[in-house]
Amino acid sequence: MAVLLSTKAHTMQDWKAALLAVDPSLEIRLFPDAGDPADIEAAVVWTAHDMMELRRYPNLKLIVSMGAGVDHLFRPPGPPPGVPVARLVDTRLTQGMSEWVLLNVLRFHRQDPEYRDQQARKVWEELSAPDTSERRIGIIGLGELGTDAARKLAALGFPVSGWSRRPKTVEGITCYSGAGLAEMLKQTDILVCLLPLTPETRGILNKDLLWSLPRGAYVLNAARGGHMVAEDMLRALDSGQIAGAALDVFEPEPLPADSPFWTHPKVILTPHAASITIPSSAAPQVVENIHRARAGEPLINLVDFSAGY
Amino acid sequence: MAVLLSTKAHTMQDWKAALLAVDPSLEIRLFPDAGDPADIEAAVVWTAHDMMELRRYPNLKLIVSMGAGVDHLFRPPGPPPGVPVARLVDTRLTQGMSEWVLLNVLRFHRQDPEYRDQQARKVWEELSAPDTSERRIGIIGLGELGTDAARKLAALGFPVSGWSRRPKTVEGITCYSGAGLAEMLKQTDILVCLLPLTPETRGILNKDLLWSLPRGAYVLNAARGGHMVAEDMLRALDSGQIAGAALDVFEPEPLPADSPFWTHPKVILTPHAASITIPSSAAPQVVENIHRARAGEPLINLVDFSAGY
Repeated sequence: MAVLLSTKAHTMQDWKAALLAVDPSLEIRLFPDAGDPADIEAAVVWTAHDMMELRRYPNLKLIVSMGAGVDHLFRPPGPPPGVPVARLVDTRLTQGMSEWVLLNVLRFHRQDPEYRDQQARKVWEELSAPDTSERRIGIIGLGELGTDAARKLAALGFPVSGWSRRPKTVEGITCYSGAGLAEMLKQTDILVCLLPLTPETRGILNKDLLWSLPRGAYVLNAARGGHMVAEDMLRALDSGQIAGAALDVFEPEPLPADSPFWTHPKVILTPHAASITIPSSAAPQVVENIHRARAGEPLINLVDFSAGY
Repeated sequence: MAVLLSTKAHTMQDWKAALLAVDPSLEIRLFPDAGDPADIEAAVVWTAHDMMELRRYPNLKLIVSMGAGVDHLFRPPGPPPGVPVARLVDTRLTQGMSEWVLLNVLRFHRQDPEYRDQQARKVWEELSAPDTSERRIGIIGLGELGTDAARKLAALGFPVSGWSRRPKTVEGITCYSGAGLAEMLKQTDILVCLLPLTPETRGILNKDLLWSLPRGAYVLNAARGGHMVAEDMLRALDSGQIAGAALDVFEPEPLPADSPFWTHPKVILTPHAASITIPSSAAPQVVENIHRARAGEPLINLVDFSAGY
């Protein structure tokens, strides 16, 4: 039985090597060289792999989808019916995302855009010190990514709240769920979006949400471009309702050159670089899921098609 | 017995209120209105207060010097002989300094200057992911500030080393001391200076040190401008030996408009704003030392005039 590997071309060999380093007995076939389709038991694929193509493999027991987001699986045609799909969320992806969140929370909290502007104007002026204990962070999405970022921010002394669809408990974090979102937004100075993209969360960063925040709040989005209503965000930034935004994701990507987000003075842009999956770090989880699928055991990070993520 | 308070003019009332909030029985006199000099038992002063002036108070038992640095006390004339001096290092100052350090370590680690440049050129390109476990941090100065920053960086997964004059042990940090500095520098990708300024440490960030670091290293200095040999730093930045520097302190301050540090593309400048002492947060430590001085008990953060800090 063989494992089909399909990733960005320049990463194929790294992934193959990383998987074999964990389990040298695996037979890895590099897409499109699948060989006899009946041999393929597992497919480890990136988000651009064609879901229809996977219907060629009659013995496919497992699909591992690279990257934390799986919204692409919910667009037609979706994965082959009956084949479980596991999301790949490794500790390094989580660590990287938390670094990006911390960098941008600290950037806004410590008034770095203002100091860069002062530096450009050769102005030596200490701005009034912000009070960390009064800079309220609100994280929407309390999965692995949101929870890790929440804990790291709380460890620095920020008061941290989080919102998730279903109720959760995270020590040291004030947790809201469901209709509690409005309550959290009113008390959020820096909003961090780490939600999965689902029909319910698409466009959540819209004028209603943005104007629910205290005037002068900041927004970070490293989840999906589809969470943001671009026009509403631009209007909020122009008006000062939102004092600054750190945006890592857009629709479409790459962001077209004529998009106003490139040049908006209040936007800190990164090109979907907040965090990526690193083969050597993620391979153990992939191999574990291959073994579990063979043994009929529950998978790690199984995608729940009824929940949408 | 009264307490003489001498701080930046616009902060006098905040300090007075903060001290009285802790101990309403204190009699606070705002410099220069000291009243009868024989009444003054303690002086709470900022770094610009004239040390000669303090010799007017025959019953002075305690000087509290605001801010973590006390190098100004070691310039003639120094404090009145026989009067103990306590440094004021409150948790908020430490917290603020660690925020500045984390912001700038993360900024360089995550290639933020490159992404800002790409944003300006509308270039959508993900840069190769940095490996946090291979980004070695070296902190020179393991006092309260250095130790706190070290712990917070280690908690994010960075390998952290520290150097101090005398040997220390900090859990999770590889500690060097004395002549071990050279060994640490060879293995440091991001250097953080949080030393006190003494005759031994003045000019420590010089060409010898800067060229001991691996080429392309980064430097953060939030200690004193006197630690840095300006010409050497500029040369290191121009040559690429140092890939970027975050500098919060200079000689002199304010930094003159014609200084090249304002405009150097590899310099991130803040105007001695990395951390300041916040009255409400620091007042308890000040009041505790006033009480201890009255009772003849050991002071918190006593300045050691033989050590130089």
